[in-house]
Amino acid sequence: MDSISATRLASLVGDVARERPPLYTALAGRIRLLVGDGRLAVGVRLPAERDLAAAIGLSRATVTSAYGRLREDGWAAARQGSGTWTRLPAGPDPGAWMPGPVPAGVIDMAHAAPPAPPEVTAAFTAALADLPRFLPGHGYHPQGLPDLRARIADRYSLRGLPTTPEQVLVTAGALHAVTVALEVVCRRGDRVLVEHPSYPNVLDAISARGARRIPVAVNAADPDAVAADLHRAARQTGAKAAYVQVDFQNPTGMLLDEAQRSRLAVGLQQTDCIAVVDETLAELWLEQPTPTPFAAVARPDRVVTVGTMSKSFWGGLRTGWLRAEPDVIRRFMAVTARMQLSLPVLEQLASCHLLDAIDAVLPSHRARLREQRDHLATALRSQVPEWGVHVPSGGLVLWCQLPTDLSSSSLAAAGDAGGLRLAAGPRFGTGHAFDDRLRLPYTHPASVLEIAVARLAEIAADRRPRMEVADELVV
Amino acid sequence: MDSISATRLASLVGDVARERPPLYTALAGRIRLLVGDGRLAVGVRLPAERDLAAAIGLSRATVTSAYGRLREDGWAAARQGSGTWTRLPAGPDPGAWMPGPVPAGVIDMAHAAPPAPPEVTAAFTAALADLPRFLPGHGYHPQGLPDLRARIADRYSLRGLPTTPEQVLVTAGALHAVTVALEVVCRRGDRVLVEHPSYPNVLDAISARGARRIPVAVNAADPDAVAADLHRAARQTGAKAAYVQVDFQNPTGMLLDEAQRSRLAVGLQQTDCIAVVDETLAELWLEQPTPTPFAAVARPDRVVTVGTMSKSFWGGLRTGWLRAEPDVIRRFMAVTARMQLSLPVLEQLASCHLLDAIDAVLPSHRARLREQRDHLATALRSQVPEWGVHVPSGGLVLWCQLPTDLSSSSLAAAGDAGGLRLAAGPRFGTGHAFDDRLRLPYTHPASVLEIAVARLAEIAADRRPRMEVADELVV
Repeated sequence: MDSISATRLASLVGDVARERPPLYTALAGRIRLLVGDGRLAVGVRLPAERDLAAAIGLSRATVTSAYGRLREDGWAAARQGSGTWTRLPAGPDPGAWMPGPVPAGVIDMAHAAPPAPPEVTAAFTAALADLPRFLPGHGYHPQGLPDLRARIADRYSLRGLPTTPEQVLVTAGALHAVTVALEVVCRRGDRVLVEHPSYPNVLDAISARGARRIPVAVNAADPDAVAADLHRAARQTGAKAAYVQVDFQNPTGMLLDEAQRSRLAVGLQQTDCIAVVDETLAELWLEQPTPTPFAAVARPDRVVTVGTMSKSFWGGLRTGWLRAEPDVIRRFMAVTARMQLSLPVLEQLASCHLLDAIDAVLPSHRARLREQRDHLATALRSQVPEWGVHVPSGGLVLWCQLPTDLSSSSLAAAGDAGGLRLAAGPRFGTGHAFDDRLRLPYTHPASVLEIAVARLAEIAADRRPRMEVADELVV
Repeated sequence: MDSISATRLASLVGDVARERPPLYTALAGRIRLLVGDGRLAVGVRLPAERDLAAAIGLSRATVTSAYGRLREDGWAAARQGSGTWTRLPAGPDPGAWMPGPVPAGVIDMAHAAPPAPPEVTAAFTAALADLPRFLPGHGYHPQGLPDLRARIADRYSLRGLPTTPEQVLVTAGALHAVTVALEVVCRRGDRVLVEHPSYPNVLDAISARGARRIPVAVNAADPDAVAADLHRAARQTGAKAAYVQVDFQNPTGMLLDEAQRSRLAVGLQQTDCIAVVDETLAELWLEQPTPTPFAAVARPDRVVTVGTMSKSFWGGLRTGWLRAEPDVIRRFMAVTARMQLSLPVLEQLASCHLLDAIDAVLPSHRARLREQRDHLATALRSQVPEWGVHVPSGGLVLWCQLPTDLSSSSLAAAGDAGGLRLAAGPRFGTGHAFDDRLRLPYTHPASVLEIAVARLAEIAADRRPRMEVADELVV
């Protein structure tokens, strides 16, 4: 089985010594966070206590107590003669990077998933009326229902990217689409560029594929530089593929304009690097319509586009898709065939009706998000004025800069006890960067966001080291 | 990119020289079949013509013409200076091992997927009434809806295997469940036992995982020997896992009784081999109820059970599940989190209602299948009396033994032209075995099966080498 070295765990855990005592609780909290959000896998052997103590600069007794606490809470288990292993506790919330049930009274500010628009019910009602003509058949439609593929293609065409149904494969959401694309465009050991920070589940999916992630720093304020850096990294590393989000990048909110898209496309093509473009948030512009899709300015055989209905409509609807050249789509199908054969018929029929209603759904969805975004930004500026809050022109989240003495991991480790579920900044990176960052979604109503920010301010005030106390002790 | 050696392709292609002339058409048909059913991947470079000609015992001109034919039909493409590559033709049927649209007038006898029972519509209608209480939420339920997990657990308990909802993870069908289980129970390079023949998509999934398949021969008439052979193979190879179907094994129909299950469970445990038991067909007994589930006689931490609604109910409903110890279920969840996050809400609600109606659905489903099974067997005995037809006591297919001078690949290669979509026997194996076998599903109504068998008899008569003609030519 796997184990993790003391130095590696120490770097993931970060600067625990600066936390408030008791330090064993702080250390246990940091390790729990790593297991809970998936950065530290389940079933991994933790380092020997004395080794971790040395690597982290704490006493052995502190590490022993921390391991004890993890075992008590179900986040670790001891196996006789073979040390302490990570596990997940029983109960309704098994951790890992996914939205799930949160205890009553806790606000989920870790995940960005809006509630369903009213049109969802009508779409399923209409779908039910369509269902009878499918029931006599076997129900398998491996590429997706032709009607749905036609609508997805039409939407691209309308957005300025002419598309035929043969260029579309329906998937079980965007993440499934990326997983399928990775199987085809890269192999074990290949390098894959990722924006840094990026979407945690895709970072995991690239590792699971056995590919090597090459992080390229994102500065939302300077997309020109990001496009140039991606090009340079592709040239220097010979990366096979690049996973990019050019519309309100998650979590930074970065948007590439048409010229930047073009330059990025040309740059990647020069090195034969395939762009896997995740357009999950492309329809969620809040100021002005997003530029033409990336694929419109790229060489058709050098780009794969990922789309989904989960953010434009509802996460309970698992419809995503891949757009690529027909030849590539057929290779993707061979992968989905051995992964899960086909997708639910009724779900696809409902997706057709929702896409037909898109011009009714999106304006009010955008208006709601715009108001919530502004509300969250205002509340943060008032409650935690020392935080850096950049307001993106679309998407679902703010990517906040914390003051230097505040740790994102420390905030997240406070966890449900503070009435907030938070995602630690490092979850969006490939190492232990971004502990000075916190992603906050504005998918809740303003009244809930208000409470969330109040709690956040309270947790933050409570987690900042009190220098006076430290001074007294140091004497 | 990949390439395939001449000797390997020659062995996959089989004995083309015995086919009726023109042999280039026969050779093209065999290669098309390999690409179409997924045994030969897309994007693979075919051997140089002279090499293949030598390996297969045909003239180079024959191979040249065959490659030309494949290119004409869209199954191969030439790239200047780098040979001929496999591809899939454009059009509604992209091949690969999955049920898809077949041209009008062609009967799909390759896949075993029954039409929907009438209760499906009622279940979705009831589900729609449940939906409103989920719409205000984010729609993500990574382990599956609690109500659905409770019903799946109850069904196991009723079948003699006490189960709690914490032991259940909902998946997007059985194949998805197996893929997730493989990620956790084995690693690249590990050995995995498979019954031989077995379900093609799982054979592919094991290879895609990077694990090594160890085939163990199945003789449906002697399950005792199969259980003993699996045990022996586990001991000799140190296999990490075994993928087995003990209820009407697909395609052989083999059923293990309770004592055989027990012996197999104990045998695998002795070598620490984890049983991944696919119960896709367990509810489709046609004579007498299946024995207690395998997991009831196995050590709880040494068995993972896979279930699905696709065959007991309808393939257009993509609900499957994994059953294991809660600790293992949580590890499975970490995998689904990075593969596709969550499953459709409405689909799961409808699955709840169908499971509530299972005692109304299954008896008539079984009665229909029983009648169709007997009808198919009778028609075969009358139309192709020289074929061996073993009638299983459950499941969806007959696994027929062909006369020695008839090739399953040859029948399947006749393809849609003969009005039948057939799956070549070797698709169910790991090499080129089973060309003397043909799997025939009895999922169509009797009247359709009647026509299918008539066409089959015609194709078979047409494909058998005419010895008289050969004799004349040999002079």
